[in-house]
Amino acid sequence: MTTVQVNTPGGAYPIQIEAKRLDKLGQSIPDDATAIALVSNGTVAAHYRERAAAALAATGKRVVYIELPDGEAHKDWQTLNLIFDGLLQNRLDRKAVLVALGGGVIGDMVGFAAASYMRGIRFVQVPTTLLAQVDSSVGGKTAINHPLGKNMVGAFYQPIAVEIDIDVLSTLPAREISAGLAEVIKYGLIIDADFFAWCEQNVQALRALDRQAVTYAIQRSCELKAYVVSQDERESGLRAILNFGHTFGHAIESGLGYGVWLHGEAVGCGMVQAAELSALTHGLSAESVARVRALVQAIGCPVQAPDLGEAQWLDHMQVDKKTEGGQLRFVLLPVIGKAQCEGVPSDALRQVLAKAAVPVQA
Amino acid sequence: MTTVQVNTPGGAYPIQIEAKRLDKLGQSIPDDATAIALVSNGTVAAHYRERAAAALAATGKRVVYIELPDGEAHKDWQTLNLIFDGLLQNRLDRKAVLVALGGGVIGDMVGFAAASYMRGIRFVQVPTTLLAQVDSSVGGKTAINHPLGKNMVGAFYQPIAVEIDIDVLSTLPAREISAGLAEVIKYGLIIDADFFAWCEQNVQALRALDRQAVTYAIQRSCELKAYVVSQDERESGLRAILNFGHTFGHAIESGLGYGVWLHGEAVGCGMVQAAELSALTHGLSAESVARVRALVQAIGCPVQAPDLGEAQWLDHMQVDKKTEGGQLRFVLLPVIGKAQCEGVPSDALRQVLAKAAVPVQA
Ligand SMILES: NC(=O)c1ccc[n+]([C@@H]2O[C@H](COP(=O)([O-])OP(=O)(O)OC[C@H]3O[C@@H](n4cnc5c(N)ncnc54)[C@H](O)[C@@H]3O)[C@@H](O)[C@H]2O)c1
Ligand SMILES: NC(=O)c1ccc[n+]([C@@H]2O[C@H](COP(=O)([O-])OP(=O)(O)OC[C@H]3O[C@@H](n4cnc5c(N)ncnc54)[C@H](O)[C@@H]3O)[C@@H](O)[C@H]2O)c1
Ligand SMILES: [Zn+2]
Ligand SMILES: [Zn+2]
Repeated sequence: MTTVQVNTPGGAYPIQIEAKRLDKLGQSIPDDATAIALVSNGTVAAHYRERAAAALAATGKRVVYIELPDGEAHKDWQTLNLIFDGLLQNRLDRKAVLVALGGGVIGDMVGFAAASYMRGIRFVQVPTTLLAQVDSSVGGKTAINHPLGKNMVGAFYQPIAVEIDIDVLSTLPAREISAGLAEVIKYGLIIDADFFAWCEQNVQALRALDRQAVTYAIQRSCELKAYVVSQDERESGLRAILNFGHTFGHAIESGLGYGVWLHGEAVGCGMVQAAELSALTHGLSAESVARVRALVQAIGCPVQAPDLGEAQWLDHMQVDKKTEGGQLRFVLLPVIGKAQCEGVPSDALRQVLAKAAVPVQA
Repeated sequence: MTTVQVNTPGGAYPIQIEAKRLDKLGQSIPDDATAIALVSNGTVAAHYRERAAAALAATGKRVVYIELPDGEAHKDWQTLNLIFDGLLQNRLDRKAVLVALGGGVIGDMVGFAAASYMRGIRFVQVPTTLLAQVDSSVGGKTAINHPLGKNMVGAFYQPIAVEIDIDVLSTLPAREISAGLAEVIKYGLIIDADFFAWCEQNVQALRALDRQAVTYAIQRSCELKAYVVSQDERESGLRAILNFGHTFGHAIESGLGYGVWLHGEAVGCGMVQAAELSALTHGLSAESVARVRALVQAIGCPVQAPDLGEAQWLDHMQVDKKTEGGQLRFVLLPVIGKAQCEGVPSDALRQVLAKAAVPVQA
């Protein structure tokens, strides 16, 4: 078993990474918990609900199951309210513990429900997608979407534990693995050039879900994210570098309509665009841009940005949370392994966006 | 001007108490605020919107106005969402500041909106009811209601300032003044016997809105609440004493249907019941019970509990947040000025509830 410790002002907790971890979930439930609510969706539940529920029931505590509809389209208030309905119908009190069994959508919603139910109860993350294991389950960002913007309503709220079972990745569609790998290589790009090189060398093992490679990739990703989050829990400074590729990525997601591209796919493509922008404004070498593009392609993510039209690109980027007082800021790389957050001249941005109008040469 | 300072782990801020404070609201807006959203309802806005907006506009910053429907019945997700709609339509960013101009309903909703919008932006409380000035605006509890329970969804989230204009009480219906005074005498009962005696002596001046009496009552109430909250921001211990009279009071509110009795009226009556219970279980003297009843009556609140029937009483009290692992706990007074939180034998509780079946003798 591998453990990564996260320490933030809002809470300290372990990330446990292990094969068959699902059968040990009871270990993360505190003794004084009055009840447990397991929250998942039908897709994940079909594979893992029974084992998770059995492991939680082994604590001797009452386990309530709440099922949400699957998909980003349901990451909204109505679905969140299903959690509150279930908790109140079952009269769960402030000492109950929520358990989020699923991908980033389930984790973000259960986390926000835990932050808000009776003004805050404890919760455990059991991420079942690669993206959730390396990214969304760590660091305490929780949210739901609003019709006018993604993740616009939420809280910074830390779980009491993150429980990662690497075996659950076996049932995940290949496209979801690719999307998760985009966030993995992001950590290398912004903070750890050696890890980026390791990813280049192990990309085939990762896509084939080689246990050793996957465990290391998750561990290193969690370590790097935990480091950033411990420096800056509430995204007032350093944490912004985790948004590398995301300003472009969010514009792709909302421009095409959520769900057309996966979040990680949009981020993969967005990182190529952000690398191109970095070349124009921060001297990132052409060779480095080529490495970014090649690895994004090798993990199975798109590298050609969709043609949204410049006006729509700019519009979708403005709404993003990185706008402050009207100035549009980007995370940029002077070299691979180092990121900084800065405003950019609109010329350079338009030049990058212009490429989104050109069909890709394979 | 009188200032009371609140210090909690979640934030430190001043409460300013002053006549015509409304015209100085701009003082509470930080220099780095990118915009201001003033949130109120039609009732309050008719009297005070113009002055508040003018004072905020004097900062030179953009002021957006968002109006919510008036009333506890609208303290729900749909109304909360009107705030998010307004903020997003006007593209307010993470450095915008919300200003809550209204009673406890507006304050609780704007506070929760501030806690959740982009995972947390700053906000200022400008409480315009007596209840909000002495209670809800101080301490950082925010929430909305759920069909299955009051204040079930919310956050602990502190404002950056509380701005109290005592003159706005002149337009408040007398019934609302009485309801606010219930919370004022509560502080005396649970923590400051001298203040309770002061209230007994000044009850007519308070009801007549004598400026000096009202200013002192608000100041002392805020000091006492600030003290309790600074000891226990998240209601894990001491803070529970602020719920004196509230277990009964909440049962009255939800048993009769929200809005039939005002919150403060229900709490006033609930304090008489809690005093009766304290006499049975903690030896509160008959004379003290009589003083509680007399002062609740003198401020203009009901002292005879409604006949909900024992089953409904118990049902509505269970749902309350003070339930932990099934045990029903109450805030009780051994003497006036001292409170403790404890489980009670169901016999004693039934005896108190039985009185709710008996018509009052005037
Ligand atoms: N909180 C954060 O810091 C953070 C960071 C990044 C992304 N996010 C959020 O995460 C979300 C995306 O997460 P995601 O990519 O995990 O999407 P997801 O949660 O929608 O999961 C993808 C699909 O895979 C299914 N699935 C999950 N685990 C499975 C398994 N083991 N086997 C088979 N199917 C499985 C899901 O039910 C879903 O249909 C977005 O809403 C994004 O905003 C949050
Ligand atoms: N957060 C907390 O710690 C806390 C504590 C106590 C109560 N509360 C909450 O506060 C709410 C009750 O607050 P409230 O009693 O202020 O009710 P309220 O906000 O509904 O106000 C009462 C009425 O008076 C109107 N009004 C407000 N100011 C006025 C003025 N100056 N002149 C004329 N009319 C005015 C309002 O529009 C409303 O119609 C409840 O929802 C309760 O849960 C919260
Ligand atoms: Zn991401
Ligand atoms: Zn109250």
